[in-house]
Amino acid sequence: MNGRLTRIKALGLPIHTRFTKPFGDCTMGVVEPCQARQIEIVEVGPRDGLQNESVILSTGQKIDFITRAIDAGIKRLEVASFVNPKLVPQMADAEAVIAALPQHKDVHYIGLVLNKRGALRALETAVHELGIVCTASDGFGQRNQGQNAGELLTMATDVMHLCQQEGRVAQVTIATAFGCPFDGEVDPDSVVAMACTLAEHQPKEIALADTIGCAAPGQVAALVSRVAQAIAPIPVRVHFHNTRNTGLANVWAAIQSGAVSIDASFGGLGGCPFAPRATGNVPTEDVVYMLERSGYSTGLDLDRIITAVNWLGDVMGRGLPGMVSKVGAFPCNNAEQSS
Amino acid sequence: MNGRLTRIKALGLPIHTRFTKPFGDCTMGVVEPCQARQIEIVEVGPRDGLQNESVILSTGQKIDFITRAIDAGIKRLEVASFVNPKLVPQMADAEAVIAALPQHKDVHYIGLVLNKRGALRALETAVHELGIVCTASDGFGQRNQGQNAGELLTMATDVMHLCQQEGRVAQVTIATAFGCPFDGEVDPDSVVAMACTLAEHQPKEIALADTIGCAAPGQVAALVSRVAQAIAPIPVRVHFHNTRNTGLANVWAAIQSGAVSIDASFGGLGGCPFAPRATGNVPTEDVVYMLERSGYSTGLDLDRIITAVNWLGDVMGRGLPGMVSKVGAFPCNNAEQSS
Repeated sequence: MNGRLTRIKALGLPIHTRFTKPFGDCTMGVVEPCQARQIEIVEVGPRDGLQNESVILSTGQKIDFITRAIDAGIKRLEVASFVNPKLVPQMADAEAVIAALPQHKDVHYIGLVLNKRGALRALETAVHELGIVCTASDGFGQRNQGQNAGELLTMATDVMHLCQQEGRVAQVTIATAFGCPFDGEVDPDSVVAMACTLAEHQPKEIALADTIGCAAPGQVAALVSRVAQAIAPIPVRVHFHNTRNTGLANVWAAIQSGAVSIDASFGGLGGCPFAPRATGNVPTEDVVYMLERSGYSTGLDLDRIITAVNWLGDVMGRGLPGMVSKVGAFPCNNAEQSS
Repeated sequence: MNGRLTRIKALGLPIHTRFTKPFGDCTMGVVEPCQARQIEIVEVGPRDGLQNESVILSTGQKIDFITRAIDAGIKRLEVASFVNPKLVPQMADAEAVIAALPQHKDVHYIGLVLNKRGALRALETAVHELGIVCTASDGFGQRNQGQNAGELLTMATDVMHLCQQEGRVAQVTIATAFGCPFDGEVDPDSVVAMACTLAEHQPKEIALADTIGCAAPGQVAALVSRVAQAIAPIPVRVHFHNTRNTGLANVWAAIQSGAVSIDASFGGLGGCPFAPRATGNVPTEDVVYMLERSGYSTGLDLDRIITAVNWLGDVMGRGLPGMVSKVGAFPCNNAEQSS
């Protein structure tokens, strides 16, 4: 990683902080550099990205998408959700997608489940990991999953036990952790309490999701740091939508506060069929640009992501909201500099 | 501000940090709350926002824009630049705009100048404050102002002295502080040195500008904290374009690192005629949403800004990139919640 170190030194980045401190800001820290802090990007485009799109991709196109993501270095992907195909037609071929996935020793596939029925379907497939969703607010829980927050917490622990019995990895996402489209503000104490209860059952990780894109970085820093400390050593993943232009700031605040994995989708594809006006996930390419230029390591190839995003825009038949794919990275691929 | 305090407590925000700590992160701090930290938003839409737009606004429309910004609570605005009207036709009526400005005791108008000729023009008007631009990189300096970085530093100090002789307020912006479209990376040591030289001449403030929108928050945190410490007590303003989706993250990182004023433009209007592919400034309404929801106080009325942004989009004849104006704030104005 000498090239990275040289580049970071040239930018004057405080390598002592970014390289060694898991929490905190960029102006303080110890002095010994070791290696760039790794941030894991979980590509959720094939699931969250696609599920609210009117253009239905064939199973083959989904496999093409997933293959391009893996070619760009992605090691962990949400590839399907086991939900009612009448409600989410895009996910009707979940089993077929999983059966057709390219097999790589170091690539990990996630299937999303909202209830026990979905979990039983998922466990019939070879998907590596079940992503269980529970919800912090009653209003969204009722509309998205037909149960209130307390009932969904019980469901999540039951499904975790089921996975453990079957020897399958399970993690849990807490939806509407930063606000609910129906109930408004969500009490952060209830989110922390929910995370603590979930943590007792030893999920692989717990994710905090800003399902509708209302979070702001001060709120994110406060909640992520509380949850990270409460459930340690279980890691925290975060999931943001860029509805109000705060998505990347929220990613930044989350990482500064202890999150280690970030959900993102190529091109910023995505929404939520049950959250009116929620727009896409944070775009993978923009998150990678932000993090790599800030001295973090994602292990991803930005050029390959951009090529895949351009392909994806053609498939979807629309411009995608991600921005780095439109202007290129800086400085390496920047045609401005040749003028 | 009891309403604010109640709301921040409900969100679980770490008021101790945000309310009292000028530097640093959101996970540490002392415990005594005092009052919400104020962040000044400088509205640059009437200058930076408009200057690269092909739709030329009449002087009356510009005054309308400025009046709407003041009605929303804006206290400091860039209203014109004194540049060659052949190169920037949108700014040809600089003197007429300044002559027609609404007068309020607590509203402060800025005229931008790139050289002594511009400064002499500005000093003939009643503009309150001259914003002097020098550039950290030779390539951009030559193309934008016809001089290299060292020559522009001399120009800036000369113009500051001129302002001081005339009893007029002066501040300085360092353009391309985070990267140059022609030279590539900019050495942060040279930016810090430039800021120190400028500080010796006592400008009202020094701004760091990401002229082309290439900055990332790790880089911003590092440079802003260095400059803020080097020039204290002179305050640091920052200026970001959202070209690569990092604009709001950069604002957040800058504030955490000691910046106290933020340039923004209604709707995210803006670009730069000499920086190819630079897109708009960070949108005022999105920055205000992010900061207020994070426990900062901007003193601005978000509803009025959104109304003005909708008006501005009609005037410009195009959709503007700002996002909060399209979906509304959360939770107060969110129609989602009524469903």
